Amino acid sequence: MFMNFEFSENLKNVKSSEIRDLLKYTQMPGMISFGGGLPNPESFPSHEIQEILEDIMKNYASSALQYGQTDGLPLLKEQLKSYLSKDENINIETDEMMVTTGSQQALYALAKIFANPGDYVITEGPTYVGMIAALNANSVNSVSIPLDENGMKVDLLDDKIKELKSKGKKPKFIYTIPTFQNPAGYTMTLDRRKELLDVANDNSIPVIEDNPYGDLRYSGSKIQSLKAIDNYGIVTYLGTLSKVMAPGLRTGYTLSQPEVLQKFNLLKQSLDLASDSLSQYIAYEYIKKGIIYTQIPKTIELYRKKRDIMLESLDEEMQNATWSRPDGGMFLWLKLKENMDTKKMLKRAIENRIAYITGSAFYQNNPEINTIRLNFTYSSDNDIKEGVKRLAKTINEEIRNNKN
Amino acid sequence: MFMNFEFSENLKNVKSSEIRDLLKYTQMPGMISFGGGLPNPESFPSHEIQEILEDIMKNYASSALQYGQTDGLPLLKEQLKSYLSKDENINIETDEMMVTTGSQQALYALAKIFANPGDYVITEGPTYVGMIAALNANSVNSVSIPLDENGMKVDLLDDKIKELKSKGKKPKFIYTIPTFQNPAGYTMTLDRRKELLDVANDNSIPVIEDNPYGDLRYSGSKIQSLKAIDNYGIVTYLGTLSKVMAPGLRTGYTLSQPEVLQKFNLLKQSLDLASDSLSQYIAYEYIKKGIIYTQIPKTIELYRKKRDIMLESLDEEMQNATWSRPDGGMFLWLKLKENMDTKKMLKRAIENRIAYITGSAFYQNNPEINTIRLNFTYSSDNDIKEGVKRLAKTINEEIRNNKN
Repeated sequence: MFMNFEFSENLKNVKSSEIRDLLKYTQMPGMISFGGGLPNPESFPSHEIQEILEDIMKNYASSALQYGQTDGLPLLKEQLKSYLSKDENINIETDEMMVTTGSQQALYALAKIFANPGDYVITEGPTYVGMIAALNANSVNSVSIPLDENGMKVDLLDDKIKELKSKGKKPKFIYTIPTFQNPAGYTMTLDRRKELLDVANDNSIPVIEDNPYGDLRYSGSKIQSLKAIDNYGIVTYLGTLSKVMAPGLRTGYTLSQPEVLQKFNLLKQSLDLASDSLSQYIAYEYIKKGIIYTQIPKTIELYRKKRDIMLESLDEEMQNATWSRPDGGMFLWLKLKENMDTKKMLKRAIENRIAYITGSAFYQNNPEINTIRLNFTYSSDNDIKEGVKRLAKTINEEIRNNKN
Repeated sequence: MFMNFEFSENLKNVKSSEIRDLLKYTQMPGMISFGGGLPNPESFPSHEIQEILEDIMKNYASSALQYGQTDGLPLLKEQLKSYLSKDENINIETDEMMVTTGSQQALYALAKIFANPGDYVITEGPTYVGMIAALNANSVNSVSIPLDENGMKVDLLDDKIKELKSKGKKPKFIYTIPTFQNPAGYTMTLDRRKELLDVANDNSIPVIEDNPYGDLRYSGSKIQSLKAIDNYGIVTYLGTLSKVMAPGLRTGYTLSQPEVLQKFNLLKQSLDLASDSLSQYIAYEYIKKGIIYTQIPKTIELYRKKRDIMLESLDEEMQNATWSRPDGGMFLWLKLKENMDTKKMLKRAIENRIAYITGSAFYQNNPEINTIRLNFTYSSDNDIKEGVKRLAKTINEEIRNNKN
């Protein structure tokens, strides 16, 4: 009875994310999952948000329930400016900022604003799944630069750009998560940051800096963001309150040159008109009252312990792999021996009641199939210990099985 | 110092909406504006939402602040199903519904899912600016079918489709706002609804029914939605809580066949991952507690009075125009004599401290330039009377001026 729908070609490259497909396993009884990318609800300032909501409904109910401006609540933008100045040493004008429906909206919009279908961009390899989804939805191709413990191998960047240019495929932007990278957990050194900006500017290529985890540092010293040291005016910076307030409120922000944001504003009018007003008022009060500055240290304390437990457990239990030792963020990156395939191994892992995301999910093409991303923020401390044991056991079994 | 950005071709058809450009005038002192499309804040259930928020933060704070599912909060979907069954006689399965970040997200997504750049779709002429924005952002063309007081002139539809098909431009969907149309205020008769479905089905063309105002009926009898009478399985239905709860909470929903929603779900993962969780919990409680059923009659009472005042004022004051007499919704449509240009007249209107949207904003191409959309829900009762006087004066002055 139903009609045979004919769909456009626009989504031909879009696949369901492996992370979402994994969800069905993570709900099995007794499963420990290092798979998701969820903040721990213990990090949510629920009590403070409850008080903020009372204030909002008393003082601004009409505005908090009404349509807002496409570029964001002016009150929130002023608070974000002050927070960014204090916290990141980023000093901008109001017309250099836009509020977004999560950072994800910015990834989608920037892919569309800068790149035509079939165009090329440069990412890190591995890179964030949400960027891959945004590229696929816009039929944009990527070439990836590998990472080491000092972040993107920027020494390879200029040659890669020249190679692409010589083929008529000048990259439309460079996308990087320089601090506590997702999925790898590495942080780019200051020298590499400066070199990245020089190379990008020499080649007239804009840079997109995604910094969702910058506030979550558990060890080492802060390194300035690309945006803070950008003298060329080439960096578009994506921030979010998802990891320092609450992800369900879908409140992100983009900093860029006004001409880029004008394009974004026009596109956002057709994407969702404006972001949620109530959530923007919550974010406004959250920063204005200074709660963000007391909440971040609490979250750091919670997550630092979990990171340490995971690293200690890996040191004790894991024989047949190497891994990153992140100074912050939510993830670490596990590399097995080269002949291992973590996607094939997932079945055995599920049998052993341990779930993870195979590293291949973090590549648009040419994945390193012997890799795994591990999240350390969501599980209980005991589950982290037990989960690492199960994972080590799974890998050992898989190696023995491969030998037979 | 700043780089010279090179942008993609993707947004070459996207212009700023005239409605947003008008904002700068509406903030001038003493201005009365019939321009915006804002619900009246008096219609917001602020007190009830305040109580709901207390319950949510007590009972579900962790979930309401956490990332949610891409297709929406299951609890909300169940409540929406029950509301749609009672209110619209629409009975669907859970996998035939998705929660969206406002209806606007659905307009964007459906344009992208069904139409390639350069493809054609059919809309009403005039039609909703948000649909035009979504088409422009996806480089999709539209051909419009005119309206009369019985809605889209469906008798012209089959010939228009055949004409487009003969040119190799088979329309990818038909978009209609059958009930209290924005901007024209007309409502499609039941006979035309049936005929529209027959013609669409005969030509294998999906139908998108946008129904933001269906609950806001001030006179006449309810006419079933296309979705409720769709025996062919060809209608995708867009609903929103923006006009019956609060627009700032950006909560819409799309009903369609599962294969369409699977595409939408994949696209939404890249657009914003998921809609605001807190707002979805508010919507869930709002329907579950039955507040929606007591709030709608209050809103109807508020708006009916305003509609009546505007119609009475027009009857008294306006000599040189005709207008629609809507049975519901938020807008009516004013037609001046054929040689008049309401865009040219806007300068005089602003001088007379009355703002409106020129009808041309509601056409992707070939606008009727002698038209105006008037909103009657936002202004105070006195401002409606005074505003109509000023508008009549403006039109009379413009006519005298044209004669000189």
